[in-house]
Amino acid sequence: MNLNNVIFVMGVSGCGKSTIGKILSQKLNMPFFDGDDFHPQSNIDKMSSGIPLNDEDRYGWLRTLNELAKKQLQDKSCVIVCSALKKSYRDILSSDIQNQVKWVHLAGSFHQILERLKKRENHFMSPDLLQSQFDTLEQPKEALEINIGLKPEEIVEIITKELQMKSEFGLFGLGVMGKSLSRNLAQKGFKISIFNREAKGTEEDVAIKFKEAHKELETSQPFSDIEAFVNSLQTPRRIMLMVNAGKITDMVIEDLIPFLSDGDILIDGGNSNYLKTKERYDYLKSKHIHFIGVGVSGGEQGALKGPSIMPGGNKDIYNLVQPYLESIAAKDANNLPCCTYIGEEGSGHFVKMVHNGIEYVEMQLLAEVYTILKTTGKNPDQIADILESWKPKADSYLLGITIEVLRKKDGNDWLVNKIVDKAGNKGTGNWTTIATAELGAPSTLIASALFARYTSFYKEERVQASENFNIVPSSFSLDTEDVLKAYQFARIINHYQGLKLISEAGKAYRWTLNLSEIARIWTNGCIIKSDFMVALISVLKVDDNILKDKTIIEKVKDLKPSINKLVSQCIINELPVPCLSESVIFFNGYTTANSSANIIQAQRDYFGAHTYQRTDDVTGKFHHTNW
Amino acid sequence: MNLNNVIFVMGVSGCGKSTIGKILSQKLNMPFFDGDDFHPQSNIDKMSSGIPLNDEDRYGWLRTLNELAKKQLQDKSCVIVCSALKKSYRDILSSDIQNQVKWVHLAGSFHQILERLKKRENHFMSPDLLQSQFDTLEQPKEALEINIGLKPEEIVEIITKELQMKSEFGLFGLGVMGKSLSRNLAQKGFKISIFNREAKGTEEDVAIKFKEAHKELETSQPFSDIEAFVNSLQTPRRIMLMVNAGKITDMVIEDLIPFLSDGDILIDGGNSNYLKTKERYDYLKSKHIHFIGVGVSGGEQGALKGPSIMPGGNKDIYNLVQPYLESIAAKDANNLPCCTYIGEEGSGHFVKMVHNGIEYVEMQLLAEVYTILKTTGKNPDQIADILESWKPKADSYLLGITIEVLRKKDGNDWLVNKIVDKAGNKGTGNWTTIATAELGAPSTLIASALFARYTSFYKEERVQASENFNIVPSSFSLDTEDVLKAYQFARIINHYQGLKLISEAGKAYRWTLNLSEIARIWTNGCIIKSDFMVALISVLKVDDNILKDKTIIEKVKDLKPSINKLVSQCIINELPVPCLSESVIFFNGYTTANSSANIIQAQRDYFGAHTYQRTDDVTGKFHHTNW
Repeated sequence: MNLNNVIFVMGVSGCGKSTIGKILSQKLNMPFFDGDDFHPQSNIDKMSSGIPLNDEDRYGWLRTLNELAKKQLQDKSCVIVCSALKKSYRDILSSDIQNQVKWVHLAGSFHQILERLKKRENHFMSPDLLQSQFDTLEQPKEALEINIGLKPEEIVEIITKELQMKSEFGLFGLGVMGKSLSRNLAQKGFKISIFNREAKGTEEDVAIKFKEAHKELETSQPFSDIEAFVNSLQTPRRIMLMVNAGKITDMVIEDLIPFLSDGDILIDGGNSNYLKTKERYDYLKSKHIHFIGVGVSGGEQGALKGPSIMPGGNKDIYNLVQPYLESIAAKDANNLPCCTYIGEEGSGHFVKMVHNGIEYVEMQLLAEVYTILKTTGKNPDQIADILESWKPKADSYLLGITIEVLRKKDGNDWLVNKIVDKAGNKGTGNWTTIATAELGAPSTLIASALFARYTSFYKEERVQASENFNIVPSSFSLDTEDVLKAYQFARIINHYQGLKLISEAGKAYRWTLNLSEIARIWTNGCIIKSDFMVALISVLKVDDNILKDKTIIEKVKDLKPSINKLVSQCIINELPVPCLSESVIFFNGYTTANSSANIIQAQRDYFGAHTYQRTDDVTGKFHHTNW
Repeated sequence: MNLNNVIFVMGVSGCGKSTIGKILSQKLNMPFFDGDDFHPQSNIDKMSSGIPLNDEDRYGWLRTLNELAKKQLQDKSCVIVCSALKKSYRDILSSDIQNQVKWVHLAGSFHQILERLKKRENHFMSPDLLQSQFDTLEQPKEALEINIGLKPEEIVEIITKELQMKSEFGLFGLGVMGKSLSRNLAQKGFKISIFNREAKGTEEDVAIKFKEAHKELETSQPFSDIEAFVNSLQTPRRIMLMVNAGKITDMVIEDLIPFLSDGDILIDGGNSNYLKTKERYDYLKSKHIHFIGVGVSGGEQGALKGPSIMPGGNKDIYNLVQPYLESIAAKDANNLPCCTYIGEEGSGHFVKMVHNGIEYVEMQLLAEVYTILKTTGKNPDQIADILESWKPKADSYLLGITIEVLRKKDGNDWLVNKIVDKAGNKGTGNWTTIATAELGAPSTLIASALFARYTSFYKEERVQASENFNIVPSSFSLDTEDVLKAYQFARIINHYQGLKLISEAGKAYRWTLNLSEIARIWTNGCIIKSDFMVALISVLKVDDNILKDKTIIEKVKDLKPSINKLVSQCIINELPVPCLSESVIFFNGYTTANSSANIIQAQRDYFGAHTYQRTDDVTGKFHHTNW
């Protein structure tokens, strides 16, 4: 399977577009179209009268060429020549078919072309007119650029080789995620190169074997040699790194640099720290390499069938990889890709990090619900039945998989009963908690969920303490409706806090973020997709703070008595429910107009002369008391 | 006021100790003693028989000289000459009088001294014997080193100038803490140089004016010029930085470096981040400058009257500043200084950071107690009365000042009622929370206390939310005995968590830490001193985990029902008590032998193939299920 392509041959007048286009179409056995043949009569009239075309005149004509390309692409490839000097022209030409368009730019110096024009019969162009063409030309970043000094056959040879032999996208690192993304890209018709390192005994012929195992990878090129991998890609190269975040990412970048050219693009699809992404961006900029940090959520299945993608970096550079990322992303309810440009610097990785923080809490809340329901004597199947009944009111991907997890049997017992209660973590929960501390935005639930995992890791200490303190949670009667309502309440607080953290980061780092768009790309493909997330798209169009939304306010008021009741019962009965309890405690603090922080300010001024503000001094001046 | 000094003139045989010592004593009008005159008869007999003395023979003799020095110091200064080649000899000589001892080392090359010995009449020493002296010599780091090539008058001139004119300790930065520490040092009899930068309009003649304002600073030297300040100090220079942590500290270090000499010592007494301290240590090492990171707690009053001091860095270098730091530190119940060498690298600053974290929680708990008692309709004086009654069972510095804070009137109202409820923070609570996240040691109360301060800062949002959600905490009946018990319970958990964090850091960074000693130096001078801290000294001698202590286990069992009751009442009545509630929630998790983390492991394996361990597989192998 391979997508049809439209090859646009572009460049200033006199660069030789028509000549090259015709030879190319013969060699590749594709129809040839000269753009100039498609001007409407009005344009022809204007030009005949010696009146130059303006952009308005051109737009209709460019749309005609775009329609022509689309029509051709339905059953074959084609070659179209068109000067396409401005980015806006090229945007129209490639509209809706971005991932099937190939640009070839025939480039020469002013004098090179002037000399060539002079030699042509029946064709006169004044140096002024040529200069205006050069002035209009906006250098295309996405094109294969070839110097017109070469012979036409050589030029066509280069184009053929580049387009037919070279891949348009490279994927570096064939772990679980890298493999799934590769298959996803290939299924969308992209010709890709895939790379995995060679390690004797553990990683041998990974790329070759992987290609052989999947039909859709037929046209892909497998590599274990970095230089060959890089050289197999069309320029500017687009290389997505799917390797372990941290030092490995830096090492891989260093390995690649010697083989890259100016203007190539590295896309980091790992769970990298957002501050490191900024550092790498700056470092690679000094080497004339572009860098895009991309958060990818969805796990193995999501990566294969459509993940949620959160790209950050320079917007212009993002546009060069946009067709690839949007094609492989999941689709939302309106069939729009769950991929949107997030913002500058490491904002894509920041948003992915908070996504994972929210995920930590959603998982922990389900674990706490299980703890509570288990205390009432229910077995995993019975608990799964209860969760199943919650779907109409609180459905989410994580709720769904938790039901499946609970139902899974292992022999005569349930599998969950045989799983050791030490929860792992791979860093993003930790980073989110650190970001919360550094930005002063209290995402307390994420911290609680992280600390619950840490506490779970002190297994031996817990067993010992359980004996020393002899605490046995007692069973207690409860209304499962209260458990559902408490769960819904805590989820609202979780989403409020996570989105607030993103909003505060946007202010602190001066990223222009669209929270509604972020919620939208989280409605499919990712681990935290849920009905509630769908509802948040419109809520966030009004305000970044979801607790200002009238419907949510009413909902919270309705849910609050249940969580008050449930959490106090849990505490009396010595049940650990860190995220449920933190949600209500945080909310009580958040809704307190006058807190006891005045006492803390007084203490600080007492022992450290840290000063305080007064309620009766509107100037906000700082006062000190000699206590 | 100025301390008496004993000047030890030291060096290998033939360096000219006696000559120089005698001239020096005449010039300074002090008694002169030749160490060789104080050998016991047994040593004289041995030497007469040509048997060389061993270290055992020497130790008694050195103690005699130490006694001689102590006796002299009672009413005057003196000069004693003694070869004092080994560090262990010098340790005996300066025992108990470290801050009154000045070392002068007369140094020359082997050949210099051999030539000199050859010229002497009636004095023969074989080159072998001289070589053994050089082999024995352990270079003193704390001595004024002078080359014997100079004329005796020149040498004496240098010594006089260095000892009489130069200060032994420099203090850089005269903010609140720097001023208090300077006065403290001067009161202990140290001759110090003090520095403050000159800033037109805001900081003019700060050091001069400060000196003039305090009698004890009579012998101190004030500066606003860095070079003059550095040159006013005896070498190796000891300079304590009391400037703002962060970039300012780095800038000050850069300003000082050009004027420092190899072997000088910088002491950072600010609240620096422990990781930065390690970086600065390494950086300064490359410039042959020593660096000691010192945590200082006690606020303005503590710094003046005796703070708690937590020094970290190289132990040998610490010994060179030990007499100064221990002299100015607070004294514990046994009159030992509240200053002890903590460990390598940034461990001193780490321990100070956790100290502040514990302090955040202790302050927040008192604010929460206030919140609860206020709900019962009590005014600040009545609340102060209740807290006063708690002193026999839970006394601490912070309890004491909170009582005073509550009683303070402002006109007809209490001052606390006029203080704005937005709690500031200066970074250490933030860092402790970050350390907790990074080290995987869940100091959850510190995070809760930090987040409570952050939430307090969202004042406008709180006021708005209070209106939107219309939450009015209702008054409820309670037993103040339960409040006390809940407070005591939470304090135990706070101390457990803070000490656990230090213990985990010790393991992670390979610092050898003595937690009992850390508790000891926290029993006076610092903000978190308390009766409970005194009790922890012996508890921590047995185990770093205070929750393994039998007495504490029984205490916790006794207190638990009260905090269960109180926190659930607070939740039902919508009162924000983040640290009280977190203490019980954490404890319930900590004492749970089998937690619900199995659910989280199952979810992670379901969507991310993260694998899990099985309870029925003792090998600890990781399993994956195709869910």
